[in-house]
Amino acid sequence: MAVIEEAMPIIETIPNVSEGRRPEVVDALVAAVRATPGVRLLDYSSDSSHNRSVLTMVGDGSALKQAILSLYEAAVPRIDLRTQTGEHPRIGAVDVVPFVPIEGVTMAECVTLARDVGEAVATRFGIPVYLYEEASNDPVRRNLEDIRRGEFEGLPDKMSSPGWAPDFGPPARHETAGASVIGARMPLIAYNINLNTDRLDVARRIAAAIRHSSGGLRYVKAMGVMLEDRRIAQVSINLTNYQKTPIHRVFDLVAREAARHGVAVLESEIIGLIPAAALVGAAEHYLQLERFGPAQILENTLKAEPPGN
Amino acid sequence: MAVIEEAMPIIETIPNVSEGRRPEVVDALVAAVRATPGVRLLDYSSDSSHNRSVLTMVGDGSALKQAILSLYEAAVPRIDLRTQTGEHPRIGAVDVVPFVPIEGVTMAECVTLARDVGEAVATRFGIPVYLYEEASNDPVRRNLEDIRRGEFEGLPDKMSSPGWAPDFGPPARHETAGASVIGARMPLIAYNINLNTDRLDVARRIAAAIRHSSGGLRYVKAMGVMLEDRRIAQVSINLTNYQKTPIHRVFDLVAREAARHGVAVLESEIIGLIPAAALVGAAEHYLQLERFGPAQILENTLKAEPPGN
Repeated sequence: MAVIEEAMPIIETIPNVSEGRRPEVVDALVAAVRATPGVRLLDYSSDSSHNRSVLTMVGDGSALKQAILSLYEAAVPRIDLRTQTGEHPRIGAVDVVPFVPIEGVTMAECVTLARDVGEAVATRFGIPVYLYEEASNDPVRRNLEDIRRGEFEGLPDKMSSPGWAPDFGPPARHETAGASVIGARMPLIAYNINLNTDRLDVARRIAAAIRHSSGGLRYVKAMGVMLEDRRIAQVSINLTNYQKTPIHRVFDLVAREAARHGVAVLESEIIGLIPAAALVGAAEHYLQLERFGPAQILENTLKAEPPGN
Repeated sequence: MAVIEEAMPIIETIPNVSEGRRPEVVDALVAAVRATPGVRLLDYSSDSSHNRSVLTMVGDGSALKQAILSLYEAAVPRIDLRTQTGEHPRIGAVDVVPFVPIEGVTMAECVTLARDVGEAVATRFGIPVYLYEEASNDPVRRNLEDIRRGEFEGLPDKMSSPGWAPDFGPPARHETAGASVIGARMPLIAYNINLNTDRLDVARRIAAAIRHSSGGLRYVKAMGVMLEDRRIAQVSINLTNYQKTPIHRVFDLVAREAARHGVAVLESEIIGLIPAAALVGAAEHYLQLERFGPAQILENTLKAEPPGN
């Protein structure tokens, strides 16, 4: 008697707002999100040198759309990019809004949501919106860094260049709130692999070997860094799509490249959060598991709605 | 800003009842469980050759105690072991009741619950109760098979032997309902490893090498079997405590023993359910993860109660 049913769809959004110094503004942003029914604020943090705040929340699509619009309502009248300064690059008061599929929801649904929210932001606030990553309509405008290059100050030039009309909204920046980058992407995994050596050159060569930009794996960004206090060289990695470039393949490739330099992997570490499926996938790989499905994970049977019980 | 809090405690119990042929009796058992607030019946199944039904449910301790007492109320007047027959050994109408820690609860709490339920069953129904596995007070009475040896029919002799007074209840069997075995244990994992050979002798030698009873790993039961349709030899394994004998250690030892016979592991498979932590543990091992905790698994942050949000 199978009693597994679909869990509620869960989408995550992590808006980045260009204000990290004035607590009363951050409080207004948080209050706007908290007042939205069906949305759970999981975390928020502000960085004053970056002058930026990051909010993490989950819900279904319609609740998150409402929360993001409320966030704009709180942010736009309070943030003026003509006077805002900080270390972090930005083109908008609400700078970036990614939607991330977590559970019971496809990437295609997150793309649809991103476009819907982008259009609503443009219409309601008169802010030009660029779609990015999976929601992008244009392969040269997929990358956040490319869209944001030139920042708020460079928007007048950029927006009048060929190929840089926004996806939604007016053809010029909002006077104080600039523009926004809204899109859909997989959850990021920040993953570091420490080597049993203090040779930074080895970590850098491994990073160059595995990262996409220099010929490595498609969804890997990587650099070599030195952990000065421990005298350990580290390959610091961002995995941008763990389904297509799984963590175990990255680990194995790093270990193999390290061996070529006479170095071994000391340990690895996950920074922040990781979806359970990324670790379950690694276990499936190393244990050579076949015929295994998520319905076999005990916790998933607990989450499923019971049938008429 | 950490917003992770404790999830609700979840305990699982899987009562085995000595009736698998009369649907109206099984229906009464199921109805008794379903009528208990705070309990979710995840699954139930009956086997008519075994003449036995197995119910799987989750809840917190007090809800499960109520559900088990209601189950006895339904079972005791309807099942008479003097006339019950079936292939499966049994000493009681409600034969075995294990409590299994799933989430946010310790084994010690499940032991306390098992003893509390055992005492209540003895008091309310006049049924002698033996505690088993982690709840046992006596090392020679830990094993279910040892307690059940002789079955219902052998109880009069057994109960009058030295060392076989029950933990709770009268010193003689209940006239129709016999005795019950109640206790606490870890979740079982049924795990098979298939070899790229049809040599059953190799599977048997590997099983003998890894199982506790013949000198192997403490929480492993294993045997070699032949998958006749695929002409593949299989090491069929029960893992009785995945925290103390982790699945990756079993896999690696099987692969090593197989290599000694010139054989490789073809694949492995999980039969039924597995706690996510068992697979996460395997990923941690092979990825050499350090400083990793369950609060870093995204789904766990979603389950936690938000703080005043």
